[in-house]
This record gives sequence, structure tokens and C-alpha cells, in this order.
Amino acid sequence: MVHLTPIIILVRPQLGENIGHVARAMANCGLRKLRLVAPRDGWPNPAAQAPAAGADWILEEAEVFATAASAVADLHDVYATTARPRGMLKEVATPRHAARAIRAKEQMGRQVGVLFGAEATGLTNEEIVLAETLITIPTAANFSSLNIAQAVLLIAYEWLAAADATPNAALQLGDAVPATQREINDLMGHLATELTLSGFLRPPEKIPHMMRNIRNIFLRMNLTDQDVRTLRGMIKSLALYGRSAGKPRV
Amino acid sequence: MVHLTPIIILVRPQLGENIGHVARAMANCGLRKLRLVAPRDGWPNPAAQAPAAGADWILEEAEVFATAASAVADLHDVYATTARPRGMLKEVATPRHAARAIRAKEQMGRQVGVLFGAEATGLTNEEIVLAETLITIPTAANFSSLNIAQAVLLIAYEWLAAADATPNAALQLGDAVPATQREINDLMGHLATELTLSGFLRPPEKIPHMMRNIRNIFLRMNLTDQDVRTLRGMIKSLALYGRSAGKPRV
Repeated sequence: MVHLTPIIILVRPQLGENIGHVARAMANCGLRKLRLVAPRDGWPNPAAQAPAAGADWILEEAEVFATAASAVADLHDVYATTARPRGMLKEVATPRHAARAIRAKEQMGRQVGVLFGAEATGLTNEEIVLAETLITIPTAANFSSLNIAQAVLLIAYEWLAAADATPNAALQLGDAVPATQREINDLMGHLATELTLSGFLRPPEKIPHMMRNIRNIFLRMNLTDQDVRTLRGMIKSLALYGRSAGKPRV
Repeated sequence: MVHLTPIIILVRPQLGENIGHVARAMANCGLRKLRLVAPRDGWPNPAAQAPAAGADWILEEAEVFATAASAVADLHDVYATTARPRGMLKEVATPRHAARAIRAKEQMGRQVGVLFGAEATGLTNEEIVLAETLITIPTAANFSSLNIAQAVLLIAYEWLAAADATPNAALQLGDAVPATQREINDLMGHLATELTLSGFLRPPEKIPHMMRNIRNIFLRMNLTDQDVRTLRGMIKSLALYGRSAGKPRV
């Protein structure tokens, strides 16, 4: 089965640099199909090269169209990004919601395209009409104008995230393995012994409470087996060879 | 209560243009505090101005530090963005998960900062150690190097989205109101009458099935009251004044 990805369609893009940044953002998120409608400075445009940062295949395979209508003619579903409401009867979706819908359409074999307007002016109403769904990217109310490559990135990122299997958070352990409760108990016993000998743990009736507090500090650390060995070495060193060595105990 | 926002900390940023793009992305997402650690070309840097696209207050209030350690000294929680695992025992979170955790910390009055490394080299291991949590932005496996402003945008966007109340999708109606079932039924009745007269609906035993198909087409449109009036005008016009006017019915 063909793995469909959304086609990014830039309508009347102005700066070649921005087209390059768009290509890089697309490549970051696994998109590859770029269409340009009437690019102001023609195409190909050498200014796009450096900002693409190596996403050359996207620039090389970019297709040029004279109008937005011709650029969407072979697509099954069209989305358009817009910063402000247009008073048209259209569904307006968040990037996150739209990304999930796009994934669902692609799984049904439907080719989706997303229209982005020119840097300064956005899409015309005639171009907006080509889309069945609008996407408005949430922004701060007082500063809503997104750079075009930033807008493409957010749509592409949400598309990637909609099928991303990265766990929310994972503890990166390296070669270590988590410490067992036995290892932690042995560490606490070692510490209690040395702290009793050094006179830190007193009076006796407060020892259980003090050791609970100490245990809680260490439990927050998500200790590994190696961490436990390191800590025990530190305790041993302080107790046997620290500043107190040779001095009478208080 | 003070409304806390995460501080963006760029460590050894190179191009002033990128700092400007970072400021714009921050403003887009409602962030305002920027710190620069040893910016290569000094600070202030006029090259940042144009790409900031008006987010001047962020550039003007940016603070400069000599080291990453001094830039995080007054913070309660530190995150660091990194493209690759570093073999350190750290939690590695997605931007989305980290954004929710940052919001929760801010609600407890904790000031959070996020470290971003230099364009070419990222953060050193000594800088990574300053952070209790790492953030790795999901990317396509074969093209993971994000522009620094793009990386800042994605973190800021997720922070914004973590408290954003925009509905997933909404139908933008303008001045229209959704059509009632009665209006739709009347439209269907009107259409059935005219299509019967014109000879489209036949033979009689197939009419119910044909009308169900036609109703399903129109129901998919989420019709408004104005849409219904427009459609009925079209039907009337075609039936009474179309090409058939004056011709005998077949």
C-alpha cells in the first residue's frame, strides 16, 4: 500500500529563503511533496538552497502551477491555513484535529493537500473556497502572524505527531539498571549504621523519623544499581577516611 | 498571582537572524523572556531586528549571560532540548508531555527555563547536566536537524496548546444558521416534485430509493437556512426557465 503524505502548497510565495525553510521543516517531519503556485521570483530559486539545509530532494521535486485551482485539481481533500475567520461556511479546525483527520483520509487512500498563502497577504477568498476545511493555528492574541515556514512546520509536526509512537517520557538509563528495593534497603542500612556511629542520628527516639526523611530524599532519585554503588562508596569514604580520621568521636 | 511563562535560553547562538526568528516564534506563542548565553556576534545584534517581525520587546528585554550555569542559577526547573540521547540518566520527554509538566510547575509558582544549544553543535554534556529533564522533539528519522527557531517554536507552541481552549473544530457559520429538518424536508419535497415532473424520477418503484440517495448527498452538506433558500431558487429556476422552457415534456 502506498504511504500517503500531505502535499504542501505555497501560493505566491515571495522569498526563496522561506521556500528553503519550508523544505527543511517538511523533511524534519517526513513530508516530501511541495507545490508552488506562481512563485514571485520564479523557480528554481537558488536562494532556497542554503535554508533547506540538505532537504534538496524536496526542492528538486517541487512542482510549479499557475493557479491554486490547478494545484489542487488532482487532490481528494484540500485544507487551507488562515489566520482569521473569513465569514465563509467552513469547518475551522486546529492543526492537531486536522492532522488526525488527514491521517484518517490518507488511510482511506485519499490524497490531501494543504494551502498556505503568501507571506504578506495570505490566501484570497477565491483560494479559500477551494478548501473544504480551514486550519487556524492557535497563537497569542496580540501577535498572530506566523512566518510561513513556521506555519508549515506546525502542520507537518502535528501530522507527524498524529502517528508518532514516542513514549511521553522515558527514563534514559544508559548501561545502568534500576536499583532493586533490596539494594536501596542495604544502602539505607549502611547509611544508618555510619550516621549512628558518627553521632548524626540522635537522640534514639528520633531515629525512625530521621531515617524516613532520608529515605524519601533518596527515593526521589530513581536510583540505579550503579548509583547505589557510588553512594555506598561515598559513605564509606566519608566515614572511614574523612576529616574525622584519627580524631576521637564526640 | 503572577502568570509565569517559560524562559527560553539560547546557548552560544550564532546568527542574529535566528535570534530574531526565535523572538517572533516566542511572541506567536505568548512567551516573553529570552536569555542569551555568550552570543557569538555580541548583543544587541541588528541582524535580529527584521526577522523578529515586530517582537521588539523580546529582543529589548533579552538578558545576556556568560555561561549556561549562570543563566539558570535563579530558576527552579531546567529543561534541555537535545536531538540525540546522551547516555545520561535523565528523563527524556516529548515536547507535548514536557509542556504539560511545565504548566503544572508554573502553577506551583516555579520558574522554568528551557536550554537550546548552538545551531551547529547543540549543547555540551556540561550544559546538559544543568537540566533535570531532556526534551527530544520527534522528527523524521533521516532528517532530524531542526533550525533553532523551529525548535523553539515547537516547544512554545506545545506550551501554548497545553492551556489552549480552542475547540478542535468548529463550523464557521457567518450570519447563517443551520437549516432545520423541516426546511430540509421541504427542500426534498420541492426537488422530488420537480424531478418527477421533469421525468428524472422513474420508474415509480425506484423513487424512494433514488430520493434516499439524493437526501444523503444533501445531508452531507451541513446546510444552512440560506443554503436551502439558494438551492430552492436554483431548482425553481432550472425547472421553470431552463433549456426545456416551451418544449414539450418527454
